[in-house]
Amino acid sequence: MLIIGERINSSRKAIAQAVASADRAFIQREARIQEEAGADYIDVNTGVFPQEEADRLKWVIETVQGVTSLPLCLDSPDARVIAAVLPLVNSPPMINSITLEPQSLESILPLVVQYKARVIGLCQGQGQLAQSVPAKVELAGRLVETVTAAGVPLGDLYLDPLVFPLASNIQSGVNVLQAISRIMKDYPGVHTICGLTNISYGLPNRKLINRTFLTAAMVSGMDSAILDPTDRDLFRVLKTAIMVMGGDEFCMNYIKAYRQGRL
Amino acid sequence: MLIIGERINSSRKAIAQAVASADRAFIQREARIQEEAGADYIDVNTGVFPQEEADRLKWVIETVQGVTSLPLCLDSPDARVIAAVLPLVNSPPMINSITLEPQSLESILPLVVQYKARVIGLCQGQGQLAQSVPAKVELAGRLVETVTAAGVPLGDLYLDPLVFPLASNIQSGVNVLQAISRIMKDYPGVHTICGLTNISYGLPNRKLINRTFLTAAMVSGMDSAILDPTDRDLFRVLKTAIMVMGGDEFCMNYIKAYRQGRL
Repeated sequence: MLIIGERINSSRKAIAQAVASADRAFIQREARIQEEAGADYIDVNTGVFPQEEADRLKWVIETVQGVTSLPLCLDSPDARVIAAVLPLVNSPPMINSITLEPQSLESILPLVVQYKARVIGLCQGQGQLAQSVPAKVELAGRLVETVTAAGVPLGDLYLDPLVFPLASNIQSGVNVLQAISRIMKDYPGVHTICGLTNISYGLPNRKLINRTFLTAAMVSGMDSAILDPTDRDLFRVLKTAIMVMGGDEFCMNYIKAYRQGRL
Repeated sequence: MLIIGERINSSRKAIAQAVASADRAFIQREARIQEEAGADYIDVNTGVFPQEEADRLKWVIETVQGVTSLPLCLDSPDARVIAAVLPLVNSPPMINSITLEPQSLESILPLVVQYKARVIGLCQGQGQLAQSVPAKVELAGRLVETVTAAGVPLGDLYLDPLVFPLASNIQSGVNVLQAISRIMKDYPGVHTICGLTNISYGLPNRKLINRTFLTAAMVSGMDSAILDPTDRDLFRVLKTAIMVMGGDEFCMNYIKAYRQGRL
């Protein structure tokens, strides 16, 4: 299970403030606690600074790389921002994200190839958000074709089937689970990923829903996730689900986490 | 999701004591709290009284039926005990359980037919416990054949693929999940069920594992479970998993449980 730590996202007020005031210690602490909690990538996002997104992101990247050697997940839909910061990263990053929209493919895909990056592909085309299972699977297939045709290895592609709120369509969860299961069967070697939080939008006790949905997605074959690994309840469920799914030989990691007082 | 409340089991010390001392109020409270928590059946077991299992079970049944009209799940491997108590039940019960062992089939199956009972079929044959996926699926198929040939409707059969501890085989969980998925696909209309607690045997923080495994089994297609519906954390996960799997139109039951302070 590959974990992208989601905390350094400027949509969180505390992060926006730390970026605005160039609070190095705060951002570095956010990176460190995610590494300690088991993140494989650190997501970095400065999207709330539209005029200065690239400059702010450069600062965040240098700040984070000052304290961890974990690779970064560069979180911007803007190819100019991605292009501006790519020369700064110390190791091949993940790019979050591309879609099937022509301007996304034309501008970001060449950067993925040039920098041997991994890339998150959203099941989203021109004016088309994949709601149904067939739509998700169809857009996933077109992403696989397009991205591999450009020279990106299939194993570097992380398909996000798009999660919509249960509150607006009770089938939203099942649609994602079935799409994940189909995608992982149809394209062996590709990865699936999703953000968890959309599923619970508009409902009470969101974290309970998010972590239950994480288990469900893992059972359906999802092998990576963008989440907050420092969320203790989420971490407990994550470690337990990995073990239940057979991914923790002799239950060693589970028992270790228990001894560390983390379960 | 069909829930069998497991609390009135004499392997629990408090239950054994209440049965031994004929503590009507205690047993009736155990029945009531499970009904209030959403149980569909009340399991009744007096297995720790080997010489008097049938008499004790008669007393428990009369006691429980004095306070609830929920159907009962008669929990004994002994056909004589089942035969002795069946005339007492107010509505068609579930019988827990039969196996493929000849003495089980010959003695219990006719009672299932005669009383139009539902029945739990363990994937267990003569000297054979189903550990692997093919073994579980094969024994499930033989149970389907045998039980329906005797005249029991397929929809009255609850197949239990047998859960073994993760601590002794890390694939135990995945084997159950894959077997459930195969069984539900191969025999549309049949039900699957399991006890959750074996999965966590020998590991710390067992309830965390049990409820994560419940979610995983539900995602794999399991449509009934023997559990303690008054376990608050388990209840939260159960209600949430039902919603995530699309089984809670407009999220009504989830929101209701939230308003009742149960999430």
